[in-house]
Amino acid sequence: MALRFADPAPDAYAYPLLIRHLLQSALDARSGREIVGSDNRRHDYQTLARRVGRLAAVLAAHGVDQGDVVAVMDWDSHRYLEAYFAIPMMGAVLQTVNVRLSRDQIAYTLKDTRPRAIIVHSDFLEALAALRPALEPGCVVITCHDGQPVSLDDAVGDYESLLAAEEETFPFIDFDENALATTFHTTGTTGLPKAVTFSHRQLVLHTLAVGLAMGQQPVEQGLWRESVYMPVTPMFHVHAWGLPYVATLLGLKQVYPGRYVPARLLALKRDEGVTYSHCVPTILQMILDEAGPDARLGPWTVIIGGSALPESLLRAAAAVGITAVAGYGMSETGPVLTLSRHEDDDARPPEQVRRWAGRPIPLVQVHLQDENGDSVSDEPGAQGEIVVRAPWLTQTYPNSAEAGAALWSGGWLHTQDVATREAAGDIVIRDRLKDVIKTGGEWVSSAEIEDLALRDPDVAEAAVVGAPDPRWGERPVVFAVARAGRTPVLQTLKDRMSPLVSAGHLSRWAAPDRLILIDALPRTSVGKIDKKALRLLLGDDVLDSRSAS
Amino acid sequence: MALRFADPAPDAYAYPLLIRHLLQSALDARSGREIVGSDNRRHDYQTLARRVGRLAAVLAAHGVDQGDVVAVMDWDSHRYLEAYFAIPMMGAVLQTVNVRLSRDQIAYTLKDTRPRAIIVHSDFLEALAALRPALEPGCVVITCHDGQPVSLDDAVGDYESLLAAEEETFPFIDFDENALATTFHTTGTTGLPKAVTFSHRQLVLHTLAVGLAMGQQPVEQGLWRESVYMPVTPMFHVHAWGLPYVATLLGLKQVYPGRYVPARLLALKRDEGVTYSHCVPTILQMILDEAGPDARLGPWTVIIGGSALPESLLRAAAAVGITAVAGYGMSETGPVLTLSRHEDDDARPPEQVRRWAGRPIPLVQVHLQDENGDSVSDEPGAQGEIVVRAPWLTQTYPNSAEAGAALWSGGWLHTQDVATREAAGDIVIRDRLKDVIKTGGEWVSSAEIEDLALRDPDVAEAAVVGAPDPRWGERPVVFAVARAGRTPVLQTLKDRMSPLVSAGHLSRWAAPDRLILIDALPRTSVGKIDKKALRLLLGDDVLDSRSAS
Repeated sequence: MALRFADPAPDAYAYPLLIRHLLQSALDARSGREIVGSDNRRHDYQTLARRVGRLAAVLAAHGVDQGDVVAVMDWDSHRYLEAYFAIPMMGAVLQTVNVRLSRDQIAYTLKDTRPRAIIVHSDFLEALAALRPALEPGCVVITCHDGQPVSLDDAVGDYESLLAAEEETFPFIDFDENALATTFHTTGTTGLPKAVTFSHRQLVLHTLAVGLAMGQQPVEQGLWRESVYMPVTPMFHVHAWGLPYVATLLGLKQVYPGRYVPARLLALKRDEGVTYSHCVPTILQMILDEAGPDARLGPWTVIIGGSALPESLLRAAAAVGITAVAGYGMSETGPVLTLSRHEDDDARPPEQVRRWAGRPIPLVQVHLQDENGDSVSDEPGAQGEIVVRAPWLTQTYPNSAEAGAALWSGGWLHTQDVATREAAGDIVIRDRLKDVIKTGGEWVSSAEIEDLALRDPDVAEAAVVGAPDPRWGERPVVFAVARAGRTPVLQTLKDRMSPLVSAGHLSRWAAPDRLILIDALPRTSVGKIDKKALRLLLGDDVLDSRSAS
Repeated sequence: MALRFADPAPDAYAYPLLIRHLLQSALDARSGREIVGSDNRRHDYQTLARRVGRLAAVLAAHGVDQGDVVAVMDWDSHRYLEAYFAIPMMGAVLQTVNVRLSRDQIAYTLKDTRPRAIIVHSDFLEALAALRPALEPGCVVITCHDGQPVSLDDAVGDYESLLAAEEETFPFIDFDENALATTFHTTGTTGLPKAVTFSHRQLVLHTLAVGLAMGQQPVEQGLWRESVYMPVTPMFHVHAWGLPYVATLLGLKQVYPGRYVPARLLALKRDEGVTYSHCVPTILQMILDEAGPDARLGPWTVIIGGSALPESLLRAAAAVGITAVAGYGMSETGPVLTLSRHEDDDARPPEQVRRWAGRPIPLVQVHLQDENGDSVSDEPGAQGEIVVRAPWLTQTYPNSAEAGAALWSGGWLHTQDVATREAAGDIVIRDRLKDVIKTGGEWVSSAEIEDLALRDPDVAEAAVVGAPDPRWGERPVVFAVARAGRTPVLQTLKDRMSPLVSAGHLSRWAAPDRLILIDALPRTSVGKIDKKALRLLLGDDVLDSRSAS
């Protein structure tokens, strides 16, 4: 009784989900908006499409073929936008090189992918010289710049000159939507950088879901036809939240700032009418410092990601008219998994604002799991590791099948972040799994204790780790840096915690046993607090039994 | 030099695009909104999901398996929404039966698909008795109602009773995203109904793209978290614009009106705060008649589709606060291809408003082709047949491979609608391809001449067809029904056309040669003007050489 599944008509177009369809959609919608380039050029979407064709033609003329990797080392430029399209559209793989890594780490990532060509901004030519041994002998070098042209003996030429000399139409063809489109390396605090990859299908679906979620944001917090988009997160970092693809699909005005210079970012914001950006807290702070406390920067919605947003920064941003919206995701997740709405802020306990991740965007499934891989209860406040499913998640690490298997243990992608789910459905990030303290059979968030410790006016910096304890498993220990001339004591923190324990907001196991004063907190090369080093400071009997696998 | 394509991690979840993921997303987003049923029940999304589980359990208990067809004959009900999810989610195929067809036609469609089960509203039990011979002997009959329960000897039971007796969890499993999800029959004016089918992948992508387009509409013309949705187009008709899927994904409040009773539609609009609907012009007229000219119905955005919107109706709707938005699509296209924005109206010549289709939604590619299959020029005003590509188009007609091949001739889906593209990118529907008049080497729109003829106060009704002409190919002829006591003359129409020809808005070949008075225009069984019959009226020498294949 089954309905016969009929073969498609011979000429029926099956429509694979390819990145070129995103650009085609923008052309078909004829937005009439402009792209403003990092070298001050400005052009429409038709010109964008022609430049994408020219870039593909340049790369093809220099031997780039389907499946080849093309690396890019550039600031947030119109060229990067063109590379986001041209390279995947010709069936090659865009490698977005993290130019903030050490040269050894960059060399490692380039050896890992063996690019057939590399596009390098003039600011990185010195680095390139040192990286040369990491590149294959035949690797084609294309230089680019936003000011003075540069010449490099072994480069095939300058980006703009090469584009100008090529045909503007390139015969882009269809291929399997599961073909790789992009790759880059994660920068964990332990081990070598791990490569992640994304396919055309994954990026198209990420674009649709993020675009859909943006359209459901409150007015002025979403991306709309009228929005003006400017990235202020490096485009080498997880597709800049995927927003260059979303902004292009929607045909928005886009502004590419090049290297981040606070005065230039503010001038572009003002002159081009930028309304939508994304950045990490550090850059937001830099912008606020440059603008001064009396600036009026609104309307400007900024998605904050990368690390938790300090409450003071959130308030300072709001004071000058910037609406900060939290997003949550990671390199392996494309990146967007959840998005918050600013209007919900009022309902949040102040200490939670900066860790509020919001709700899953369409097609994202979020579970909270305990250490046995079981779902935690549906009760608000129950903590568990965030595990996710979505149609755009990294399926493995090409250079580490073992880490890939751990990532996907049990059929869910493990974020290693511990969170709770509020009654209304919002997800609140509590801690990194490896920083959670297991005591008295409960998970206690080190970040939560740190938040409370930082309210002590005597404390300049604080970090909390678990010390092994034969009876309780672990017990929290506070490392604190004192403010000049002050001497923090443990009792101040305990007094602050006591009413929260009574009210049931905090586990009674969360009160620390020790407060250790320290001159400065140890930090990793990218500036994160090095908790591994702190655990070692606790003494020889302290084993780092829970570092990331 | 190619990047190694790594095998996914053993447990990596590939995430096929399945309808169950749309419902899962709604649950994960925890909207807190209600579904209001056609029998006045109201429940939240968690209950919707449990009822979907129960319906699948009922069907499975009665032998429905993957690939089986389950037919539904119902009004726009909460049950239909449940069927939209439960039947595809269990791997079966939902057949949405057009209850407005003649019994013979319905019998034909049921013979074509051979459903394993059928859910029938009490209003259609009499029809069902007549349809019995068309059903397979083992076909399971489930009755349902919105008022008095009914009993039917050979039914296995009543929908609500059966659901209540089953478990609320059903073990939905993953399968190929290309599995069929829905089927229904097109109702062309010629030939037998043709079956179309849609897969899970197609419906998920249609949902994402329509949702994305809705979020980009001007405020109060889109579907938002705050919108309250009520369908007023039959849910048997091309997935009710796909909006039950979109509304569910977004977690909106949804109101299901059951059989359309104007007073009830208006009461639901008022009491439940409905803000978003879709309907055909006839139903809109019915609502306006019921409400009266002094009603205040806004905010209420209504997508109009199915046939062109008469200008008078557009104005009457606006007068009571209804914002009519045009959409364009057809059975074979899921249906949505384009969507207009109401704010653009002011820029439109009044005679075009009702044919304005708007712009393609994301991932839809629209070309205008001449009769040789070549793209027409990009000049505004150039006419061509709309041919499209999108990831959710019918790939063939299962019961007619030949018609499927014609539908997809040249790799593009042929809509048989002739349109122009305005400078801003909007598509304006000019005519059905078979009604276009080919004269002097140009395509002249019969609909456009009809619009002009109808402005003559002496003309009650008008239809224009092409008469064969040895020199010009064809020449337009007007059939007109006179208003009582009036006698229209051809010159009035010619005078009206003359300045439009001078201004270049109209081809000089468009002026008709003849006006033939007629008592009434011949119409097809579904009320459309029968142009085939009109061409025959022109005499024995008039061959209907261009009827649809």
